[in-house]
Amino acid sequence: MKTGFIGLGAMGAPMALNLHKAGKLKLAWNRTFERVSQFAKANGIALAKDPITLARECELIFISVSRDEDLLEVIERVLPGLAEGKVVVDTSTVSIETARQVAKRLAKVGVAFLDAPLSGGVEGARQGTLTMMVGGDEAVLARVRPVLEVVAGRITHLGQVGNGQGAKAVNQVMAAGILQGVTESLAFGQAMGLPMDKVIEALASGAAGNWFLSNRGPSMLKQEFTPGFKIALHHKDLTICKRMAETLAAQLPIVEMTLIHYNRLMDAGFGDEDISALFRQKQWMLEQGQR
Amino acid sequence: MKTGFIGLGAMGAPMALNLHKAGKLKLAWNRTFERVSQFAKANGIALAKDPITLARECELIFISVSRDEDLLEVIERVLPGLAEGKVVVDTSTVSIETARQVAKRLAKVGVAFLDAPLSGGVEGARQGTLTMMVGGDEAVLARVRPVLEVVAGRITHLGQVGNGQGAKAVNQVMAAGILQGVTESLAFGQAMGLPMDKVIEALASGAAGNWFLSNRGPSMLKQEFTPGFKIALHHKDLTICKRMAETLAAQLPIVEMTLIHYNRLMDAGFGDEDISALFRQKQWMLEQGQR
Repeated sequence: MKTGFIGLGAMGAPMALNLHKAGKLKLAWNRTFERVSQFAKANGIALAKDPITLARECELIFISVSRDEDLLEVIERVLPGLAEGKVVVDTSTVSIETARQVAKRLAKVGVAFLDAPLSGGVEGARQGTLTMMVGGDEAVLARVRPVLEVVAGRITHLGQVGNGQGAKAVNQVMAAGILQGVTESLAFGQAMGLPMDKVIEALASGAAGNWFLSNRGPSMLKQEFTPGFKIALHHKDLTICKRMAETLAAQLPIVEMTLIHYNRLMDAGFGDEDISALFRQKQWMLEQGQR
Repeated sequence: MKTGFIGLGAMGAPMALNLHKAGKLKLAWNRTFERVSQFAKANGIALAKDPITLARECELIFISVSRDEDLLEVIERVLPGLAEGKVVVDTSTVSIETARQVAKRLAKVGVAFLDAPLSGGVEGARQGTLTMMVGGDEAVLARVRPVLEVVAGRITHLGQVGNGQGAKAVNQVMAAGILQGVTESLAFGQAMGLPMDKVIEALASGAAGNWFLSNRGPSMLKQEFTPGFKIALHHKDLTICKRMAETLAAQLPIVEMTLIHYNRLMDAGFGDEDISALFRQKQWMLEQGQR
C-alpha cells in the first residue's frame, strides 16, 4: 500500500521515519519545505513537490498537524489529488466536530477517513510504541492496520468517526488532573522541607504512582522543564475539550483550572516548556505566603 | 521483640492478624471491646484488659487510629505503662505537628517514637504489601524494621519525626489530583457517548494510565462505589493538608476543590462510599447542562 505522510513536525517526523525504515513510505510533504529538506535528505526520504502529487501517487495518506484549521487547510490542498478508494488517516488532535466534518467532505469523493489521535509523546513516536485511538469504519481500519502498526504499539477502535478524538479528549483531561496532583503535591512537599527524592521513591510504588511522577518528578525538582509535551499544545487540546463540554452545557472544573494556570505560564513566557512546568505555578502559590 | 497493637479497625485488624500469623504479636487492644472480641477470638489473638497492661508487657507498640485526637488520647492512656527503651510506632494519618508533639511527650520518659503512615489501603494491609513512610531516629527504625516488614512491603525512611506524615500528605494531595482527573475525564467521555470500556483499555496502557483508572474506572462506570478508601477519611486527610498549608500561608487549589466536592457528597449522604464516588459529583456537573 503506497503511503504518503503530510506534516513532518515533532510527532510526524519520527513516525514518517519509522514508515520509511519499514519500506512503507513513498512520499512525504510539509507545508514549510525549509524545515524538513535537511531531515528528508539525511534519511533518504522522498519529498513530494506538492500535496496534490502526494495524494495522486499514494493510496494511504497520513496527516499530522497541530490545529483544526491546519487539518482543514491540508484537506483542501490534497483534495484535487484524491480519488475513490483512497484512505486518509489523521493523527492530529482536533475536535470531534472537525473530524466528522472532514469525513463527510471526503466521503463525497469516495475517500475513507479515520481519526487516529495518539498518546505517548515524542518518545513513543520515535520508538513506534504510540497508543492510537481510532474512529471510523472498522473494515477500513482492518485494511490499513498493517501500516498503522509500524507507528503504533497499541491500536484501539472506538466506533464511528470522531470517537478517536473523543477518547483523546478523555486522555488529555485525565492527564491534566494527574499533572495538577503531581505538581501541587511535590511543590507542597518541597515547601515542607521534605527530602523529595525519597518521597518520590516511596510514592512511586504505591497506589498514587504514575508515569508523570516517575518520569517528570525528578526533573521538576531540578527546575528542568524541557519538552516532552509543550504547555501551548496541551492548552490547545484542553481548549478543544472546554468547547466540546460547552456544547453539552457542562462544566469541567479541572480543565478550567488548568487553562487558567497555563494562561499565566504562557503570559510569563513559558508556553514552549514541558507541561511539568505547571510546577512553577504551584511554587508561586506556595511562595506567596512566605514573602 | 514483644509487640502490642492498639486499634483494630479496617487497617489495624489485618495488620495485627499478619503480625499474629508471623508469631510476633503478644497483645492487642481496641477502645471499643465489643467490635473486636469476635475477631480476636476467631483468630486466637490475645486481648489486653487495658492499654496500660499492653504497654507494660510489650517493647514495641503499634497504634492505628483515625484522627489526631484519637492518637493523643491513646498516648495518654498507654503512658503509665511505658518505660525507657520502649518504642511506639504510629501508623495513623495525622498532622506533622501532632506527630512531633507526641514524640516530645514520649521522649521525656525515654520512649522512642516513629511516625509511620501507610499507603496501599485495606488490600495492602491484608496482603502485607503496604508502603510505609517513616519519620524518626534511623537507629530506632533499624531495631524495629524486622517487625515492620511483616506488615509493609516497602519501608522508606524520610528523616526526622513528622516527615513520614509529610510524605503521606504529599501522597494524599497527589491522589486527589489523580482522582479529579480520572473521574472528570471518564464522566466527560460517558457524556460524549463513547464506548467507555474501550476508552479505559486504550488509555490504561498510555502515559495517563494509573492505579485508579485500572482498579476503580470499571466499577465507577457501573455506579459501584464500595470502599476501598472512604470519602470521609480522605476528607479528613485533605483537611490536615489544608491546615498544614495554612501554616505556610500557601494555597493548594486541588485540595480546596476536592474538599468542596467531598463536602457536597457528604451532605448528600455519600461519605461512607469509596473516593471513586467523586464520579457522582462530576456526573452532576455534566448533567446540569442537559436538563
